[in-house]
Amino acid sequence: MTYRAPVADAAFFLEHCTSLKALAGKGALADVSPELVRQVLEEAGKFASEVIAPLNRIGDQQGTPFQNGVVTMPKGWKEAYKAWSEAGWNSLPADPQWGGQGLPSIVNMCCVEYWHSASMAFGLGPMLTAAAIEAMQVHASDALKKKYLPKLVSGEWMGTMQLTEPQAGSDLTNLRTRAERAPDGTYRLKGQKIFITYGEHDLTPNIIHFVLARLPDAPPGTKGISLFLVPKFLPKPDGTPGPRNDLRCASIEHKLGIHASPTCVMVYGDNEGATGYLVGEENKGLACMFTMMNLARLGVGVEGVAIAERAYQQALAYARERRQGKANGAASGPNAIIEHPDVKRMLLTMRALTAASRAICLKNADAIDRSRHMESQLDREAALEEANLLTPVAKAFSTDSGIDVASLGIQVHGGMGYMEETGAAQHYRDARIAAIYEGTNGIQAIDLVTRKIAQSGGKALHRMIDQFRAMAERVEETKDDEFGTCSFCLSKTVDSLERASAHMLKAIKDDPQDALAGATPYLRIFGLAAGGAYLAECALAAREFGGCEKPENAARVAIARFFAENIAPASSSLERQVVAGASSVLGSDVALSA
Amino acid sequence: MTYRAPVADAAFFLEHCTSLKALAGKGALADVSPELVRQVLEEAGKFASEVIAPLNRIGDQQGTPFQNGVVTMPKGWKEAYKAWSEAGWNSLPADPQWGGQGLPSIVNMCCVEYWHSASMAFGLGPMLTAAAIEAMQVHASDALKKKYLPKLVSGEWMGTMQLTEPQAGSDLTNLRTRAERAPDGTYRLKGQKIFITYGEHDLTPNIIHFVLARLPDAPPGTKGISLFLVPKFLPKPDGTPGPRNDLRCASIEHKLGIHASPTCVMVYGDNEGATGYLVGEENKGLACMFTMMNLARLGVGVEGVAIAERAYQQALAYARERRQGKANGAASGPNAIIEHPDVKRMLLTMRALTAASRAICLKNADAIDRSRHMESQLDREAALEEANLLTPVAKAFSTDSGIDVASLGIQVHGGMGYMEETGAAQHYRDARIAAIYEGTNGIQAIDLVTRKIAQSGGKALHRMIDQFRAMAERVEETKDDEFGTCSFCLSKTVDSLERASAHMLKAIKDDPQDALAGATPYLRIFGLAAGGAYLAECALAAREFGGCEKPENAARVAIARFFAENIAPASSSLERQVVAGASSVLGSDVALSA
Repeated sequence: MTYRAPVADAAFFLEHCTSLKALAGKGALADVSPELVRQVLEEAGKFASEVIAPLNRIGDQQGTPFQNGVVTMPKGWKEAYKAWSEAGWNSLPADPQWGGQGLPSIVNMCCVEYWHSASMAFGLGPMLTAAAIEAMQVHASDALKKKYLPKLVSGEWMGTMQLTEPQAGSDLTNLRTRAERAPDGTYRLKGQKIFITYGEHDLTPNIIHFVLARLPDAPPGTKGISLFLVPKFLPKPDGTPGPRNDLRCASIEHKLGIHASPTCVMVYGDNEGATGYLVGEENKGLACMFTMMNLARLGVGVEGVAIAERAYQQALAYARERRQGKANGAASGPNAIIEHPDVKRMLLTMRALTAASRAICLKNADAIDRSRHMESQLDREAALEEANLLTPVAKAFSTDSGIDVASLGIQVHGGMGYMEETGAAQHYRDARIAAIYEGTNGIQAIDLVTRKIAQSGGKALHRMIDQFRAMAERVEETKDDEFGTCSFCLSKTVDSLERASAHMLKAIKDDPQDALAGATPYLRIFGLAAGGAYLAECALAAREFGGCEKPENAARVAIARFFAENIAPASSSLERQVVAGASSVLGSDVALSA
Repeated sequence: MTYRAPVADAAFFLEHCTSLKALAGKGALADVSPELVRQVLEEAGKFASEVIAPLNRIGDQQGTPFQNGVVTMPKGWKEAYKAWSEAGWNSLPADPQWGGQGLPSIVNMCCVEYWHSASMAFGLGPMLTAAAIEAMQVHASDALKKKYLPKLVSGEWMGTMQLTEPQAGSDLTNLRTRAERAPDGTYRLKGQKIFITYGEHDLTPNIIHFVLARLPDAPPGTKGISLFLVPKFLPKPDGTPGPRNDLRCASIEHKLGIHASPTCVMVYGDNEGATGYLVGEENKGLACMFTMMNLARLGVGVEGVAIAERAYQQALAYARERRQGKANGAASGPNAIIEHPDVKRMLLTMRALTAASRAICLKNADAIDRSRHMESQLDREAALEEANLLTPVAKAFSTDSGIDVASLGIQVHGGMGYMEETGAAQHYRDARIAAIYEGTNGIQAIDLVTRKIAQSGGKALHRMIDQFRAMAERVEETKDDEFGTCSFCLSKTVDSLERASAHMLKAIKDDPQDALAGATPYLRIFGLAAGGAYLAECALAAREFGGCEKPENAARVAIARFFAENIAPASSSLERQVVAGASSVLGSDVALSA
């Protein structure tokens, strides 16, 4: 078995550290129970490790050959996708009205992790479809919904999200793709999109593209962007794919990783223009995008967790097996390299970063669920602010962790790690994209600082800081030696977050340049405090529910301690960067010009 | 121009921050002058950017196809290598007795940086040859020297270093390759070596392998290993390649990066055994290896610098050209992304890490030169201890920097960075190996802690800490606002190093496990203090020689400041890991077993 989904850990966290129990059995979640959730996770984990994981290597090696506009997916992928969607995995979180199973976000996010651990390139396509479903559920007309949602929800057709153009990446202001009104109420699109994930493939008989474009009379800038649904094949009245639309894949990119995820250049309107249908209102396309953005960003954060988990499992297995050198104190060598303290430090760092990132992502998903399912509107609004706040942290911190953990995974393997046959290098290559797409991690930091922390005057932020501090205090109260200096280190980190936050809330008013220059280290502090606090919460639950005689519970305490003592303390130097160091960034220009 | 060698910076550092001026013109360096050195660096830089740099991409794409035991180098590589060696670049540091130019190590290391910046896969072959030359100069018999050294020094033939076997990587104890004595005084080798860089290729008409093997009556472990010179073709009496020796390349590896550097599995003794010649004494092979190890490790550190420099230059050029988003305070957008503070922070981090790593490597080379050329034996011995101390730091810190900087280089490029055509991804792939080979960075940390810091009771270590502190004090004395809080931050870092060192010196006696668990963070603190101090020294020289009206001198101050304020402060949390955190590594086992 090359990959085993960490179901027990997730189920424990969901049951004891989230609102799942409180929300389950009521309202829209009437049919949901912790037992059902555990069962879903177990089945998902099984499917991921048995069906998807074996495709990962072949996907990396074969890639997706492109010829005459046709993209051929790697061997076995079409069959696996069919089995996956027919088993209902694509419909997990969607509205039952359209064939979805209406399960909480948090359950779906656990599964998203498993798909991506098994194969990031595989998981990516459905993640884009899910974003399209999300946007449609909120913004599309009933007619469009009826025609497309059931097929997208079932996974019979897949969806794409098309924003980027050569001159419009992080900033969509200068987006140029044109959409002209046709007499029949539809639109004709002309233009070019780049970096389109799963823009063309042979997994499904139709692909539904969601394309940002500009009307002829649109105001300039991002307030003049509209969202269009543009099918590859225009459906016939019976719903089956009909005539080919005026769009094509012009080429695919040769990338560092995720080779089995075709990244396409898409061309619209070689002839009369591609037929598109407006989603939402004219010129309000960006609002539709924002609807699905939080969820997509969290999904990418989960990709970071996923690749970290896979890399960790592989490195751990290798370190137990590979014998080299006599360990200090051992009677004779060679010993398994896991016996060497330096290797142990690497593995613990991998494990702790993975667990912290996962905890942040799951807390984020939990906040989304509470924002949808809590009874009181006030609670729902507070939960939404919490979700908004956590999203950039979940995305950036987790994807940075994915890269760091995959890199450590190579290092644990030594020379073997650099050989492609080992597989550790693929994780490293695959992981690297997650810090870039769906808003680079720099954009996440800017979003956190300029939009998220100041929501309702910083109330959500301060509530969260209070929660983090409470965790440190609860650890202290246990007086349990197994926690080491966890409480002390965590408190220090929360202190750093509090001071850095005060600095930032002032800076975004008085000196935006200063705030922008410190955004990345600020987000990192936030991630360290949040990750540390959530791991502590999980460790406290482990003591309470089950007790530390069980090795898995002792492990939860050990991970919280390791993270707090070895990883979280970086917050102090990051705080210096936020509070005092910004001027040295902006004042050091000369170093970039000489 | 895709790459421009940073000659002016190197020349400035060599003239003002090393012993080059003091050593030049005397003894073995009688013919060396700062003017000559600057000329050599300029010519080397020109050759690297004009001849080698254009080969880097093609090398990555074509790799080195292997068929029937033959490795074919990429298009243009043979011609470039010929031109390079004929221009005398291979012979730079070697003894004039064997056709070398006897230039100081530090000059050669600057050139080594340029070759590797231009193409790491190209630079790697000659680096192995240089290691072989080094071992031969010290340990080989006169007869062997006469026969092989002139051809290795000129570069007409290349050399390899062959240590690793499947079961003998970081630990050579269980090395199995056998060497039997033949009646004619030569030896017959049988066995298999793996991960052999440039083990087979078509650049030169002969390849001279340096192979570790075990005699039939050798004591077990590393005290029973001997070093043999094993030519691919046995030279005829006239010195030209004669009959093929009983060895072959069995396969080459498919690696993450450095595709144009063939990594070979070598097989010895399909028939009667490969003819080998003993280098040094029987069973003293490891001592011969140690001779060249310091230099080879420094060379790999310089590879880290080289790839960082190349990645930085590319990211800087892209950030100046790519326009996206309106910069805060700008009248209108889109602006060059270098105008965004977060991008500026990334570029400055890249520049500062590169400069600090280079400074450490050059100081290390300077110590090697002083250990060879200073008049008093006491001074030479002190310099050697300094070189020994700096080597693991130069290797590990610089190669970690190479990876971090290459990763930031991708990030600055955004989505384009993930596309292979951009070239940023190749640097990231190439850079990754340098933290692994020539002793993993974990091995370097263990070497630093268990062998190097305790040399002569810690005298060299404390002398160096005093030097670092003096730099912080000299910065303070300038009372120059341009330094910001550089002196304060640097002092704090040196304090951390001092306390962590005291802890380590005690731990290696009292609790080796504790020392081993903290070795990696300890090395990192050392690198931060050394890098910060050397950049400060360079900045002080910039103020003194030329003054800060010159942009390049102002840049030197800005880099020292940025490093001290933004990068060095990580030392405080690393110190926590060294002093208090080790127990949490060793006490968290349970997290790896549950």
